[in-house]
Amino acid sequence: MRIIALAGGVGGAKLAHGLAQILSPQELTVIVNTGDDFEHYGLYICPDLDTVCYTLAGLANPETGWGRVNETWNAIKSAAALGGIDWFNLGDKDLGTHLERTRRLKAGDSLSQITSDFCKAWGVQHAVLPMSDQPVRTIVATDEGELAFQEYFVHRRCAPKVTGFRFEGADEAKPAARAQEALQSADAIVICPSNPWVSIDPIRNVISIPAGKPVVAVSPIIGGEAIKGPAAKMYRELGIEPSALAIANHYHGTITHFVIDRLDAPLLESINALNMQTLATNTFMANHMDRKRTASEVLHFIGASV
Amino acid sequence: MRIIALAGGVGGAKLAHGLAQILSPQELTVIVNTGDDFEHYGLYICPDLDTVCYTLAGLANPETGWGRVNETWNAIKSAAALGGIDWFNLGDKDLGTHLERTRRLKAGDSLSQITSDFCKAWGVQHAVLPMSDQPVRTIVATDEGELAFQEYFVHRRCAPKVTGFRFEGADEAKPAARAQEALQSADAIVICPSNPWVSIDPIRNVISIPAGKPVVAVSPIIGGEAIKGPAAKMYRELGIEPSALAIANHYHGTITHFVIDRLDAPLLESINALNMQTLATNTFMANHMDRKRTASEVLHFIGASV
Repeated sequence: MRIIALAGGVGGAKLAHGLAQILSPQELTVIVNTGDDFEHYGLYICPDLDTVCYTLAGLANPETGWGRVNETWNAIKSAAALGGIDWFNLGDKDLGTHLERTRRLKAGDSLSQITSDFCKAWGVQHAVLPMSDQPVRTIVATDEGELAFQEYFVHRRCAPKVTGFRFEGADEAKPAARAQEALQSADAIVICPSNPWVSIDPIRNVISIPAGKPVVAVSPIIGGEAIKGPAAKMYRELGIEPSALAIANHYHGTITHFVIDRLDAPLLESINALNMQTLATNTFMANHMDRKRTASEVLHFIGASV
Repeated sequence: MRIIALAGGVGGAKLAHGLAQILSPQELTVIVNTGDDFEHYGLYICPDLDTVCYTLAGLANPETGWGRVNETWNAIKSAAALGGIDWFNLGDKDLGTHLERTRRLKAGDSLSQITSDFCKAWGVQHAVLPMSDQPVRTIVATDEGELAFQEYFVHRRCAPKVTGFRFEGADEAKPAARAQEALQSADAIVICPSNPWVSIDPIRNVISIPAGKPVVAVSPIIGGEAIKGPAAKMYRELGIEPSALAIANHYHGTITHFVIDRLDAPLLESINALNMQTLATNTFMANHMDRKRTASEVLHFIGASV
């Protein structure tokens, strides 16, 4: 049984971690959004890729879900004392990742190869792949004009009202070589509970999900609110009521299976009408056991023999 | 009384600190070697400039003389764990300086302006100037070929045998604007006890020391050995017996006054024969009081009314 998981940052990383506790390295490949990558202080930063890798490696900060555990913040504090930009959190250990990645990219290595080598060094056994080795940049259209993703997300704390999204470079970007192979040979695809607009859509704009295989999504919205991040706010600003049903509509035509939280069971009938099988269960992942349990239910739901 | 001090790293920073304890910000300007600047992990690093600024700011590591006090090393350890280069010590706080300097250089600011702003932020009241805003690179010719300075100095720990030096870019580099003004209006010039070959000669290759003013050098060699660094080894490898006399010969024609350690008093007669006034005193600076006392003796020796 070969499973591909598509993931953004925090929520995606949690389910990917649950899947990695059940599936062997041969059985699971995680393809990660790179649309929120950006350059900061001349360094090439991949927030979602690092969150997934740190989480699988057990190096993630359990408080935040992103960044490193037992982190110090001396470099960014020292730069800020000199008038430097401090709106993006850069821990010292995390900075080491960005320094070495930037050095290797400049030396001509691909992001896939670098990520693979970093995973080896961190003891991550499952394959984690960037969606592409070419730059794709999520641009958020807002009532204050277009904003680069991190500008919108971190600097402006998602305050501007969203009117749309585009993925700069997506037309020219090729799927990372191993990502396309993995998708072809996959038995099923899991869309993790990440933000559909800015975590999963960038991936879907670069990689085409093959037809004829089970594709299961886990709703990132529970009871009308996103567990983390601006997904619900985005739906509202785009004139759509945020709900598990809105997510089902978002992925309609792509997914065959959909997992919602028990809280959203009243929506089961409307979602089933969209021609997908639906499972209502406890999808909130507060701890490591929740991650494994949710992953296990998702796999059983699509009939994965694990 | 306006004094210009020419300085490299550790030894130069000590005397500059002593001078700064006596002279007002109007009376002292420190011009610093930038020949050992280099790019590492894409960051623009100025080891001597930072050592002088950190020392004057009271932020220097008292154990090493370079780098920051109360430093952490998480970024470089994290990069090294990923296969990164770790032969150059990059503390986290220090890294913040390099990140912000690199960011501002890329934004088009000059090294002089950046250094001036950093000094303000660090509470350094005396002017500290890079010798030039254009890159000058000290290249060490050795029996193993030419080596970039930090490659020779830090990576190879000065092991290769030196056959000469050149200062790439020195012909095209202009003195930093305020450095040239300061030299013109100076009443006297102090050459700090820095390495003549690789700390002071780069400065002299970019900035011409005006004639007709007292120019005093403090010997970085005591009893035939350098207090720190490879100066004595360099003299030996170039076929010159390392001594205060060798330093006097090095600066012959440039300096009017020379300060040597009491230990080297037997050389007084030979040095006086070089047509310079010589003072033998205690020049070893083990603590802050030593720095101030040495600076005071140097100033009185050249007749500075302070």
